[in-house]
Amino acid sequence: MFPYVTVNLAMSADGKLSTIERKQVKISGQDDFRRVDILKAENDAIMVGIGTVLADDPSLTVKSPELKEKRLSSGRDENPVRIIVDSKARTPCSAEILHKGPGRRIIAVSKSADPKKIDELGKYAEIVQAGDERVDLRIFLAKIAEMGIETLMVEGGGSLIWSLFEDDLVDEYYTCIGNVIIGGASAPTPADGTGFIRENEFTKLEIASMEKIDSGVLLKWKIIKN
Amino acid sequence: MFPYVTVNLAMSADGKLSTIERKQVKISGQDDFRRVDILKAENDAIMVGIGTVLADDPSLTVKSPELKEKRLSSGRDENPVRIIVDSKARTPCSAEILHKGPGRRIIAVSKSADPKKIDELGKYAEIVQAGDERVDLRIFLAKIAEMGIETLMVEGGGSLIWSLFEDDLVDEYYTCIGNVIIGGASAPTPADGTGFIRENEFTKLEIASMEKIDSGVLLKWKIIKN
Ligand SMILES: NC(=O)c1ccc[n+]([C@@H]2O[C@H](COP(=O)([O-])OP(=O)(O)OC[C@H]3O[C@@H](n4cnc5c(N)ncnc54)[C@H](OP(=O)(O)O)[C@@H]3O)[C@@H](O)[C@H]2O)c1
Ligand SMILES: NC(=O)c1ccc[n+]([C@@H]2O[C@H](COP(=O)([O-])OP(=O)(O)OC[C@H]3O[C@@H](n4cnc5c(N)ncnc54)[C@H](OP(=O)(O)O)[C@@H]3O)[C@@H](O)[C@H]2O)c1
Repeated sequence: MFPYVTVNLAMSADGKLSTIERKQVKISGQDDFRRVDILKAENDAIMVGIGTVLADDPSLTVKSPELKEKRLSSGRDENPVRIIVDSKARTPCSAEILHKGPGRRIIAVSKSADPKKIDELGKYAEIVQAGDERVDLRIFLAKIAEMGIETLMVEGGGSLIWSLFEDDLVDEYYTCIGNVIIGGASAPTPADGTGFIRENEFTKLEIASMEKIDSGVLLKWKIIKN
Repeated sequence: MFPYVTVNLAMSADGKLSTIERKQVKISGQDDFRRVDILKAENDAIMVGIGTVLADDPSLTVKSPELKEKRLSSGRDENPVRIIVDSKARTPCSAEILHKGPGRRIIAVSKSADPKKIDELGKYAEIVQAGDERVDLRIFLAKIAEMGIETLMVEGGGSLIWSLFEDDLVDEYYTCIGNVIIGGASAPTPADGTGFIRENEFTKLEIASMEKIDSGVLLKWKIIKN
């Protein structure tokens, strides 16, 4: 029905993904970097929102040669399928994701995307349409499940992750909590958007594990699905 | 010079203190409630911002009879000194803090506070002036240290806590991370305000302990002071 979704992100001890300038900042350390590389290599696909693409221009590639080798020897591409959620096809054709390293790319668009842009991007990625104004994540995730994607890692940002929680689409939620305070009322957080209003709407979690990593703490939560 | 400051708060797994409606919500459980009561009883004073007073109207009293008894037997009031940071003396005269239970109350105001309001509130609390437009926390904390307050607990909210970090006034930072997702880009967080911009400005922390409590996780950090 849907892929198994694992959200993974690094946040400061006061719950920020970045500063109010929304540029990429270093929150976790080398051990977490390797952990995330392993997690990436274990998933069929990895997804980010257009906000993260425009802010950080990540490549989302698997970094370690051994992990890439392992994927190849099991008949898979070196990199998981890389997905951008981008209602209006704003992804620049120069985006790192579209050029660095081998592997499939998918861009999720809505009906409101400009057909000209869709054609241009079509040279670099498979375009999947879901939803009218904004990408309808339940429809999109059902579509990629049909395309064979069973496990999906989400790296951010806060707006995309919020919508995934709102639509009850998240299965596991990992936060590497770094040993810094960033601050900022308008700084990005793990779940932005409008948020829940009533306490009985809040997504319920169950702690799966907690461990020290680098100078921070890694919390793994399982979502108690509705 | 300054009191020893411990910030303690409950936040959701996505770093929120409340919803975007900023009303008080239940994030932690009974065991954490007792832990906070003990922490309160151990401190000379407990401080909140006017935002929290207007949102939650907390009494900040020690709840457990044993803890109150212990304080009395050591020659102290049942409750720690209760402090509101309130530049313009907006505290309602009906605020719970000013009426519930025995003990000293202090309201920190700035020069911009209306003298009439200061007189009214003077019936219920000691008024300490520090700063011109907004309360200058370094001046204020130095003043209460001179008044004999050596240990200070801060319960929130995000704007006040941010300023304390900005002024390098925090010694320990405890977060009880509850097993819920709240969401909301504009929901209150542990450190709001403008936040730091450059990575070398971020407050550096050191993890002191991590433990499961109720259905959540309690992290205790020590601040590496500049
Ligand atoms: N610390 C970390 O681990 C980490 C990881 C990733 C990102 N970040 C930071 O997070 C920030 C970017 O986060 P962000 O929230 O601005 O952007 P984002 O979540 O990456 O992308 C959000 C955008 O996705 C599009 N979208 C399409 N359908 C959507 C739906 N159903 N729900 C939500 N969004 C949908 C929207 O733009 P359209 O309407 O144009 O489609 C929306 O503005 C940056 O500061 C980045 O540095 C940090
Ligand atoms: N989950 C928890 O543990 C917890 C605990 C406490 C509060 N909360 C939540 O937090 C929210 C309230 O937080 P808040 O940020 O709005 O209010 P706040 O931090 O309690 O108070 C902020 C106010 O204090 C005054 N102030 C005076 N000098 C200041 C200075 N130097 N720096 C910063 N503030 C100064 C300012 O108002 P003036 O300019 O008028 O002085 C400012 O607006 C509510 O939603 C409440 O439910 C949650």
